[in-house]
Amino acid sequence: MVKSSSNILKNVSTDCVIFGFDNADIKVLLVKLAVDPGKGEWALPGSNILYDEDLDVAAKRVLCEFTGLENVYMEQLQSFGKTSRFPLFRVITIAFFALLKIEDYSLEPGPKVTETQWHSINKLPKLPFDHNEIIETARKRLKQRVRIRPIGFELLPQKFTLTQIQNLYESILNIKLDTRNFRKKLLNLKILIDTHERQKGVAHRAAKLYKFDKRKYNKLKEQGINFEL
Amino acid sequence: MVKSSSNILKNVSTDCVIFGFDNADIKVLLVKLAVDPGKGEWALPGSNILYDEDLDVAAKRVLCEFTGLENVYMEQLQSFGKTSRFPLFRVITIAFFALLKIEDYSLEPGPKVTETQWHSINKLPKLPFDHNEIIETARKRLKQRVRIRPIGFELLPQKFTLTQIQNLYESILNIKLDTRNFRKKLLNLKILIDTHERQKGVAHRAAKLYKFDKRKYNKLKEQGINFEL
Repeated sequence: MVKSSSNILKNVSTDCVIFGFDNADIKVLLVKLAVDPGKGEWALPGSNILYDEDLDVAAKRVLCEFTGLENVYMEQLQSFGKTSRFPLFRVITIAFFALLKIEDYSLEPGPKVTETQWHSINKLPKLPFDHNEIIETARKRLKQRVRIRPIGFELLPQKFTLTQIQNLYESILNIKLDTRNFRKKLLNLKILIDTHERQKGVAHRAAKLYKFDKRKYNKLKEQGINFEL
Repeated sequence: MVKSSSNILKNVSTDCVIFGFDNADIKVLLVKLAVDPGKGEWALPGSNILYDEDLDVAAKRVLCEFTGLENVYMEQLQSFGKTSRFPLFRVITIAFFALLKIEDYSLEPGPKVTETQWHSINKLPKLPFDHNEIIETARKRLKQRVRIRPIGFELLPQKFTLTQIQNLYESILNIKLDTRNFRKKLLNLKILIDTHERQKGVAHRAAKLYKFDKRKYNKLKEQGINFEL
């Protein structure tokens, strides 16, 4: 899709915060910029919105152009518009975010980037513009979310261990949880089904595999929970 | 504050959803537009953001210019940017919202409006652009919020009756609640203090007055609740 540059909204961009889970840790997808401003720095995939393009369409297009990721459903986070945020002229950015399973997607750096890479959310480099702040805001949204909704359905394999789901929560919250307490509270939600199977291919102490009760999961997602951790 | 029109970001505006509570009902502040597009129609207070203006500053300025309301703290809702939303050219709007006590503020229509008025959220007229959708999104945010946080501290008088707080919830949710059930759940939150006083100036059956336990209220606000209604 080639558009002439006159079609660009000069003062409005979109930035994409893509969180990925690899069954152990939450990561953020960053791109190394090939052009200024920010040349050579790790940053969020982001670019101008086009004049005749809806916001969610723009976010999808930009993400694909920068990283090769296609058809990622992103949710709007919020706008960031401090007058000082971009060095050359005024740009207000509308940030979107998504959480996905890293293994399900392959990356392909676009023309404006030299590299794409998953970075652990707890060890991010200093990013240009206000990108660290944008990621921090997205992370806060996730943190709020894990306390009021069940999460994991889109992120875990169909059958998963309690350790995997605990890793997910610990990585988002950046704290160590008490395993016994966490499991008790999690099982109390009654959204897990014991598959009566165990992990395969592990040397010893193969853990039990669970899956989500999709109906109950969706009910709690709608109704809300109070998941005190 | 007079700014030349060259200072305007032509493609970005802000719209303000001001919810007001009058102890009985949730209302939305609308202005009757004095100029086209939308001349003569009720709409949200909204206008372009200036080149050198932060987003929250723009929202405050626009609200004040249209309605006379000063120093209202607004929270960002989200951006609305469908290509078709504005008839003349592309305008992406960043919506902000606030909840306030109607009696604490007085209105003064600015030069671009002929009238300002509080409209019941459950009887809104058809508004121009996507303003009905913006209000609906803000209302959804409020609806989610009442289920996961205590509300009312900023909206109710210092001492209030259980009927007043039930009116607040019913008005946001647009449903009738079972009084006995609602009161039981509310009292279970342990955020209300019985003042041992009763309403004054009512003919008979003066109701008990309560106030919030501010410390517990703030704790629950932070920690989250699951207020199933």
